[in-house]
Amino acid sequence: MIDKIIFLGTSAGMPTNNRNVSSLAVLFDHGKNFWLFDCGEGTQQQLIRAGLKLSKLNSIFITHLHGDHLFGLPGLLATRGLQGVKTNIDIFGPIGLQDYLRSSFEYSETYIPYHLKIHQIEKEKYLTKRLLWKKENHSVFSAVLDHQMDSFGYMIISKEKKSNILPEQLIKLGIQPGPIYKDIKEKRKIILKDGRVIDSDFFIKTVVRVKKICYCGDTVFSKNAIDLSRNADILIHEATFSDQEEYKAKKSFHSTIGDAINIAKLANVKKLVLTHISPRYERSSDNNERWDEFQANANSQLPETIVAYDFLEIKI
Amino acid sequence: MIDKIIFLGTSAGMPTNNRNVSSLAVLFDHGKNFWLFDCGEGTQQQLIRAGLKLSKLNSIFITHLHGDHLFGLPGLLATRGLQGVKTNIDIFGPIGLQDYLRSSFEYSETYIPYHLKIHQIEKEKYLTKRLLWKKENHSVFSAVLDHQMDSFGYMIISKEKKSNILPEQLIKLGIQPGPIYKDIKEKRKIILKDGRVIDSDFFIKTVVRVKKICYCGDTVFSKNAIDLSRNADILIHEATFSDQEEYKAKKSFHSTIGDAINIAKLANVKKLVLTHISPRYERSSDNNERWDEFQANANSQLPETIVAYDFLEIKI
Repeated sequence: MIDKIIFLGTSAGMPTNNRNVSSLAVLFDHGKNFWLFDCGEGTQQQLIRAGLKLSKLNSIFITHLHGDHLFGLPGLLATRGLQGVKTNIDIFGPIGLQDYLRSSFEYSETYIPYHLKIHQIEKEKYLTKRLLWKKENHSVFSAVLDHQMDSFGYMIISKEKKSNILPEQLIKLGIQPGPIYKDIKEKRKIILKDGRVIDSDFFIKTVVRVKKICYCGDTVFSKNAIDLSRNADILIHEATFSDQEEYKAKKSFHSTIGDAINIAKLANVKKLVLTHISPRYERSSDNNERWDEFQANANSQLPETIVAYDFLEIKI
Repeated sequence: MIDKIIFLGTSAGMPTNNRNVSSLAVLFDHGKNFWLFDCGEGTQQQLIRAGLKLSKLNSIFITHLHGDHLFGLPGLLATRGLQGVKTNIDIFGPIGLQDYLRSSFEYSETYIPYHLKIHQIEKEKYLTKRLLWKKENHSVFSAVLDHQMDSFGYMIISKEKKSNILPEQLIKLGIQPGPIYKDIKEKRKIILKDGRVIDSDFFIKTVVRVKKICYCGDTVFSKNAIDLSRNADILIHEATFSDQEEYKAKKSFHSTIGDAINIAKLANVKKLVLTHISPRYERSSDNNERWDEFQANANSQLPETIVAYDFLEIKI
């Protein structure tokens, strides 16, 4: 089950004093493994700082091939090999990803000692939301968004069955709480001292917990982002510019804060986190004004909106 | 004139908690501009931390195309463009560098708004030390070293003419120290009150100051490294392993501390700085022993040897 997400890079285009370029880690099962969404330059260094080990990384999703989402990938994969990790890795991304990696490894004579399973996404198949991958109890859906080049949004849906015991029924039969309840929950065969046999199924209610996280990298306002993120627990959406600079956003095929908030409202998401913030809003001793304006712009429309920062952790 | 060098990355192969992968900045003329030697992933982020602006970077020298010396280059060049820098940049490195950059920019659709002058070095022409480039009062020599792939060492020789005044001669003529000395030094035409005309050339001694810095990236012990670094003020040489792990060094075509020290002694260099340190010597709460051993190994052979660390600055 998804535990938490950690932002590794939240800047648009280039790194700044406070923010690295795009990457997001999604952690599962109490940190037993994690996935990456985007891999800008310096992501492997950010992982060290976040205390995440490459041996626990088993899947990577690249939204699009712009350098600030991609240029950290060859180095990260090479380091994973140098560290002696031998397990396969699944990598998803637009067409071109495979050739980019192949040429990076070719010129640098990099040997990868594990299998890279590269899944290139054909835009034509993802013009609307569609299942991309199913792994254990996780499903990943994808849809193409609207950017200067093919850019894909991703929605992870994790399901977990949980058995809850129904104590009222058991007490009625004279079975008091104790270690026996654990046996019932774990569906062990139970014979009471008086010879009665307990059928666990009658005393257990199975609940399915569902968690939904949607990540939309670079895009303008896109109907597909609404469809993809519908009812998500968290939508992580780019917001490169504040509403005041809508013309800049349009020109560069990026979203404003207002675009992201509209998506979140229309899709009925529970929590919105903005990322991919332009360096123009960089907080510094002489530039707090712009940053305050950016933050106010978000809060005035949807007060609970979170503006991500590097190493922000959100429990799911 | 060369002012100082700043180590931006001193780890071998992969980044660690304390060290980034290879890069070295050489600063000229009171920080007016600088050059880079190698550009491992995360170099642009290290530049931010070191307070160095990409607008002042005008030349880059890549020793070889292994990822830990190269993978930061596309991102750094892209950011330099995004920041609006329009000045050309000269980049030197082995054959393959141009195609690597072209393919990185092609897949990521990166536009570079300035001219990249890529100078690929043909190994056959640099089997022994030879002039590679002359720019203003700097000459760069190069020679191929001995690694798993073509790897080049670089020697910068900077010359600066400095005019020193000879006060004894002037005092003999009754010309006392004062603002007039500055005029003489700057070779302005000088007519004394009594009508005498002073020919500055007679009262000035021109001194040529020479500074020599040699950088040898990945290599085993190499005769070319001796020829290249002869009489250098500073030799920066890789020392991936301590002498105790000579077999590891040999196997991976790297140098031991002893190799680097031998080069420095045979070449009569004034100061030796070791870099490209294997992560196995990483200083940490439970691994001080290996680090101490590494340091002791260097000091026992040449006590004044410096082991580089990230952001170490050395004035020249």
